[in-house]
Amino acid sequence: MSEQMKVGVLGARGKVGSEVCRAVEAAEDLALVAQVDAGDDIAELVEAGVEAVVDFTHPDVVMDNLEFCIRHGIHAVVGTTGFDAGRLDTLRGWLADNPAAGVLIAPNFSIGAILMMRFAAAAAPFYESVEVVELHHPDKADAPSGTARRTAELIAAARREAGCPPVPDATTTSLDGARGADVDGIRVHGLRIRGLVAHQEVVLGGVGETLTIRHDSLDRASFTPGVLTGLRAIAAHPGLTVGLEHFLDID
Amino acid sequence: MSEQMKVGVLGARGKVGSEVCRAVEAAEDLALVAQVDAGDDIAELVEAGVEAVVDFTHPDVVMDNLEFCIRHGIHAVVGTTGFDAGRLDTLRGWLADNPAAGVLIAPNFSIGAILMMRFAAAAAPFYESVEVVELHHPDKADAPSGTARRTAELIAAARREAGCPPVPDATTTSLDGARGADVDGIRVHGLRIRGLVAHQEVVLGGVGETLTIRHDSLDRASFTPGVLTGLRAIAAHPGLTVGLEHFLDID
Amino acid sequence: MSEQMKVGVLGARGKVGSEVCRAVEAAEDLALVAQVDAGDDIAELVEAGVEAVVDFTHPDVVMDNLEFCIRHGIHAVVGTTGFDAGRLDTLRGWLADNPAAGVLIAPNFSIGAILMMRFAAAAAPFYESVEVVELHHPDKADAPSGTARRTAELIAAARREAGCPPVPDATTTSLDGARGADVDGIRVHGLRIRGLVAHQEVVLGGVGETLTIRHDSLDRASFTPGVLTGLRAIAAHPGLTVGLEHFLDID
Amino acid sequence: MSEQMKVGVLGARGKVGSEVCRAVEAAEDLALVAQVDAGDDIAELVEAGVEAVVDFTHPDVVMDNLEFCIRHGIHAVVGTTGFDAGRLDTLRGWLADNPAAGVLIAPNFSIGAILMMRFAAAAAPFYESVEVVELHHPDKADAPSGTARRTAELIAAARREAGCPPVPDATTTSLDGARGADVDGIRVHGLRIRGLVAHQEVVLGGVGETLTIRHDSLDRASFTPGVLTGLRAIAAHPGLTVGLEHFLDID
Repeated sequence: MSEQMKVGVLGARGKVGSEVCRAVEAAEDLALVAQVDAGDDIAELVEAGVEAVVDFTHPDVVMDNLEFCIRHGIHAVVGTTGFDAGRLDTLRGWLADNPAAGVLIAPNFSIGAILMMRFAAAAAPFYESVEVVELHHPDKADAPSGTARRTAELIAAARREAGCPPVPDATTTSLDGARGADVDGIRVHGLRIRGLVAHQEVVLGGVGETLTIRHDSLDRASFTPGVLTGLRAIAAHPGLTVGLEHFLDID
Repeated sequence: MSEQMKVGVLGARGKVGSEVCRAVEAAEDLALVAQVDAGDDIAELVEAGVEAVVDFTHPDVVMDNLEFCIRHGIHAVVGTTGFDAGRLDTLRGWLADNPAAGVLIAPNFSIGAILMMRFAAAAAPFYESVEVVELHHPDKADAPSGTARRTAELIAAARREAGCPPVPDATTTSLDGARGADVDGIRVHGLRIRGLVAHQEVVLGGVGETLTIRHDSLDRASFTPGVLTGLRAIAAHPGLTVGLEHFLDID
Repeated sequence: MSEQMKVGVLGARGKVGSEVCRAVEAAEDLALVAQVDAGDDIAELVEAGVEAVVDFTHPDVVMDNLEFCIRHGIHAVVGTTGFDAGRLDTLRGWLADNPAAGVLIAPNFSIGAILMMRFAAAAAPFYESVEVVELHHPDKADAPSGTARRTAELIAAARREAGCPPVPDATTTSLDGARGADVDGIRVHGLRIRGLVAHQEVVLGGVGETLTIRHDSLDRASFTPGVLTGLRAIAAHPGLTVGLEHFLDID
Repeated sequence: MSEQMKVGVLGARGKVGSEVCRAVEAAEDLALVAQVDAGDDIAELVEAGVEAVVDFTHPDVVMDNLEFCIRHGIHAVVGTTGFDAGRLDTLRGWLADNPAAGVLIAPNFSIGAILMMRFAAAAAPFYESVEVVELHHPDKADAPSGTARRTAELIAAARREAGCPPVPDATTTSLDGARGADVDGIRVHGLRIRGLVAHQEVVLGGVGETLTIRHDSLDRASFTPGVLTGLRAIAAHPGLTVGLEHFLDID
């Protein structure tokens, strides 16, 4: 049997982090050698010989975590949110000084969500109309979801590049909010329904036909295959990568 | 054979109106004796001895049409949109002065749409969450659709009567419009997609489960059975009726 | 505060039973006073003063459990499967001797599934066509699901009673199985997809329109509200009741 | 203006054929010079100088039609169903003797359907489970549809190439047909519902998530852009082509 990669999890006792721990333990090619959470000493990673970490922590602490990892040549697969252009530049600077380390910043580890965005952007230039509907549990604080916003941006970019005209809309009388939010000219609607987890639908339409691409996350565990894919690929991708899609071979 | 009811169609050259004309002509118990559209003289209805009209025109002209019909004792089956409380009160006033005339204002003549509304209202008290999504072709002028608005009102009324608390929603950060329009506390979302005709989905959710009721009109012809049902019943229902469901025997 | 009903759970350490325990403990009006599973002494129920049990055990033991409960005047809400006409007759005999006890045998505790079946049967006579699609995880042993089969039977009965003709189907060339299973003349299709839990869709169609009623169970916890509804109503329903729908006030 | 291509339509009085006639007549670069249907003499094509035909007829007559066309050097764009390996081999033989003629056999002329198939095949290797559901009006003679069959074949090929194991299915007790038809190891289900036109859904699932790709043709007119694309390209593609995707530039 081939040697196992030594993995540490930051945010190991959180909802997502504990799912990641379970998945790493279950994977034959990975060994979970460190579980770190608030209050623990991050130096534990070095003592345990960690080769790569998964970070699902908090915007307030993730930069400190990454500085430590990069400095010690530990790769990082990061699902924590809050990365703006400034933070990404800071990471690039640290990585320039430690060229062997790889960092993957991924806003979404769901392979299904990534495929949905790809297909939506690929199909968008063939259709007159396209809108995005996302559906989540009612405890979610932001609307629309980050994935829906990003999907709309990718669709808008694909249409701009293909020279598509704006989507048609003859609405003249409207209740406030009825036509959803406008993201780069693409309408985005957010539903909040008890019982749901995380769901999104892209509806495209032309004369006489529609194409609908829908992604349903029914369980938090749906993120783990993408995290494992990130771990297995990170050593071969030194430097900064933004988006798990760069580690997938879709086309 | 029994005598035929003499029917006039207002908006006879419109897409919906012309379907109505075809259906009236095909019905053995109805005679199409007047077809009126923009530019025609509405007095033609009286000359032709019309007993009941079907009106699929425009919010800008429908009140003038109805004032004329009621004044001349002509019943009206109305699919034109844009009726608010003020307009309905005006109609009631006119009808009080002409007690023999009957007017049916129906936001939707589709029996499927009526079943959808019934089922949505019946199910709503059993669920924590419920939202309405309507999808139409992009040439539609109003958002949300009259059917969606009415569905939300029926749901809200059913929940009030059952003593349900407000639907949960933890949204604190939102792009304008992302959470849809608020109709009596129920969120309503409107999509405009080329290729679609008239579609609506009610999504209800509780712990661990959702119930979805969806109605798809794929062809304008789906409205005509309901219009004929309205014509056949209108003479027996003087005064104002709002909603075709009052003419149906569902339970 | 009103007094709590004392509840016992039979099959308390099973997947469903342990969910029931959690739900009973969380309910303010119910007290979980006994948890019994294989190897435990059922007499514990009497010692603990149990007023009603929930039984999610096994066809092999459920009749012994119910004989004991009925003899001791303990109500029972039963989700265990395997009840045929003979077993129901036996239960009726025992209950005749103990007229204060109530037993609810329910093949499905999901309120959403019950609403889906009700609405499907109510709508079926208005449409020419109707079919049932059920979707479950791929570890399920039977196809179609019991709920899908029962839905088809209810639809077929409603159509027979309304004098509907058979559903139209011009298929002359078919791959084996392509048109699904035939349950009382209604076609039923079963999908097995990893990631799904328990889902069902009833599709009805007439000229130019379709009505779709879909139920999604995303989590086993979706059964618990129905079980609690059963517990709260059982004392007021002495004798045998088959189907949770008799305890719901839907119409 | 460039010269028009002379087009004949076989099955010209059928529902699809008559839409094709309308679309050819409306196209500036095409001339509709022959409309042939059952009872007409196919020799009319030669008299009219037809360069390419569109055939939407019936599996019983299409081979005779194509033998005639190929023998006379007339290109053919064929939407008629029922082509198996034997029929395609027969066509290849005829074309070998008439190398200038081009025949396009396309199970679906809808660009949306082609995108659906592409996306389904691209996504299939990422998921454990995948099944195909097609829904059509109840006057359709074959089940499953040619598009559904082809989608399943493309999915099966993509999974084979990626080394995927068979889709999981623990079914041990099944009503005949409940699990659909088996096309290369992929389950395919066909619904026949009044009111529908032509619809298909591919459901893919992995741990905790599903991806659904759905195509809805709501109007026969949705096929015509693809048919015209086929006519415009056929002269440049002598020999046999199976699938309109070979004439499109998607990637």
